[in-house]
Amino acid sequence: MATTASLARPDINHRVLLVERPAGVPQAEHFRIEASPVVSPAQGELLIRNLYLSVDPAQRGWASDGSNYSPPVPLGSVMRALAVGQVTNDRTGRYAPGDHVYGWFGWQEYALVSAGAVLTHIPEPAAPLSAYAGILGINGLTAELAFHLLGRPSPGETVLVSTAAGAVGSAVGQIARHAGCRAIGIAGGPDKVARCTRRYGYRAAVDYRTGDWEEALRQTAPDGFDIYFDNVGGTMLDAALRQMRVGGRVIQCGTASVANWMPTPQGPRAEREVLTRRLSWGGFVVFDHAARFGEATERLLGLIRSGALIYDEDIDVGIGAAPAALRALYAGRNNGKKLIFVG
Amino acid sequence: MATTASLARPDINHRVLLVERPAGVPQAEHFRIEASPVVSPAQGELLIRNLYLSVDPAQRGWASDGSNYSPPVPLGSVMRALAVGQVTNDRTGRYAPGDHVYGWFGWQEYALVSAGAVLTHIPEPAAPLSAYAGILGINGLTAELAFHLLGRPSPGETVLVSTAAGAVGSAVGQIARHAGCRAIGIAGGPDKVARCTRRYGYRAAVDYRTGDWEEALRQTAPDGFDIYFDNVGGTMLDAALRQMRVGGRVIQCGTASVANWMPTPQGPRAEREVLTRRLSWGGFVVFDHAARFGEATERLLGLIRSGALIYDEDIDVGIGAAPAALRALYAGRNNGKKLIFVG
Repeated sequence: MATTASLARPDINHRVLLVERPAGVPQAEHFRIEASPVVSPAQGELLIRNLYLSVDPAQRGWASDGSNYSPPVPLGSVMRALAVGQVTNDRTGRYAPGDHVYGWFGWQEYALVSAGAVLTHIPEPAAPLSAYAGILGINGLTAELAFHLLGRPSPGETVLVSTAAGAVGSAVGQIARHAGCRAIGIAGGPDKVARCTRRYGYRAAVDYRTGDWEEALRQTAPDGFDIYFDNVGGTMLDAALRQMRVGGRVIQCGTASVANWMPTPQGPRAEREVLTRRLSWGGFVVFDHAARFGEATERLLGLIRSGALIYDEDIDVGIGAAPAALRALYAGRNNGKKLIFVG
Repeated sequence: MATTASLARPDINHRVLLVERPAGVPQAEHFRIEASPVVSPAQGELLIRNLYLSVDPAQRGWASDGSNYSPPVPLGSVMRALAVGQVTNDRTGRYAPGDHVYGWFGWQEYALVSAGAVLTHIPEPAAPLSAYAGILGINGLTAELAFHLLGRPSPGETVLVSTAAGAVGSAVGQIARHAGCRAIGIAGGPDKVARCTRRYGYRAAVDYRTGDWEEALRQTAPDGFDIYFDNVGGTMLDAALRQMRVGGRVIQCGTASVANWMPTPQGPRAEREVLTRRLSWGGFVVFDHAARFGEATERLLGLIRSGALIYDEDIDVGIGAAPAALRALYAGRNNGKKLIFVG
């Protein structure tokens, strides 16, 4: 899929439609890009010109047919996605033309939505706009809220994080360090491991693609982990459960390492670990916590301004980059939050 | 193993020693009864004449070699057990002769222990002494504390309980009803199912020994369960996880249905259920909460006095009943809390 770098035309909306149901990670062939006219908003709607389309692991689940926390994207419709955009025409009475917004605007150049699709109104950006689709969007909000609400960290505790160099994990490492914790990362490959320790606040990081990474992990924290911030599930989760301390907290934010849930894959039974280690294992979906987005955004901005929180972005240009983006994300080929600029 | 009903002699202590490491449920042949002289306490010790020996599912774990929340009972030593007894000779300065106590006194007629072995001092019993080994002992305390601390129940919620007719489950059903919840039980066989609904406060109960009990369970609560109080793990847990409501709490109090944890048995991966249902799955070991035993005992006594909480006991007589007691318990042959009277 070639990347088109041409400017969006004010009268044409290029939309990325999901046209086939993927069994695992969505590939370019599961999508089709279609041009359609830009439509004016009716009363109660607003028209948004998208700027940054978000590429997120959760989109695999949204595109699939399995049990999920939201209904699957209907075939033939625009791929569900978050984006940062600019209001061009408001008929909700809530926004001024030119205002920036973050929300459910889909993989397309223009979005015609109702006010309910807007997650965040950004009247005066306090950071580059792209940040609102990543570190100040669901990735940073997930890191900040899940770590504190489910992790309940205390200074001096040891925190394990999977996909530690990813958009969420890179923030968790730094937020944990700032909370006085010792962060240990799991990442894929020597480059990502180096980013963890040299850039993202991790005391140590383990490459799960090497031989006995479970033993290497044990050596980073012989007394075990107090918190496991898990984005992947699967065998990494299995290993982490066996290394949790009594009273440990396991935060389940994603299951990216498990390609297919139909039928449910088998793994070692977890209930004995939960019981004997007195674990507290919780599922976290950031959209449940929208009421806290404002306060969490302020905390994240404070950390960014003080230099305690840095973030990386990996930005493609043009809507044509969208169909192959999830495949690249799941292959770990991005260096930082993956975005597609369509402005 | 014949039951001996002879009175305990004041100079001889019959002790049940663990002499072989069981692979699953301890059988009579894993124990040997030995007569030894009763020894006088040294300074800092007390001698207790046991009255009621407790028989608990957790003893399987204590006797086994696997990873556990307490070290395994050493071969050749007295089987670890809770008991209610009477102080015959105190050299700790804390108890009067004749005082009743509940604690780690082992499967034996006399226990020579330090003060740390006493969990509860019962200077003035407010219920029959046997109750202090069951409904006012770890079984009732587990039901009361785990249900409230990890379950966080709200009136109107639906609560699922496994081993619903057992020493813990029979209390959970009634405590849940008293909290304004709708309790649904899982039990083995028609007699236990009838006890659940006619005696233990359950709105409905399902017999897991019948054909499609998972579907039968679904019909008792088509909208799913808010709380699952689990004593068994295994396939019942698997089924329950698939029927939890969003935001549900899973209380792991035991894993009685899984006979052997070496090697760890396989089951359906749970992390997707934890994530998409936003579960909060916690392990509960009652001994972590000793500081709350006093208040919880008062609440349980209040429920008993008001008639809101009834309890059943299944009492064998004589130390000779101990070696075969766990096998009978795991086969579900008891009607109520299993105790052995050795007074």
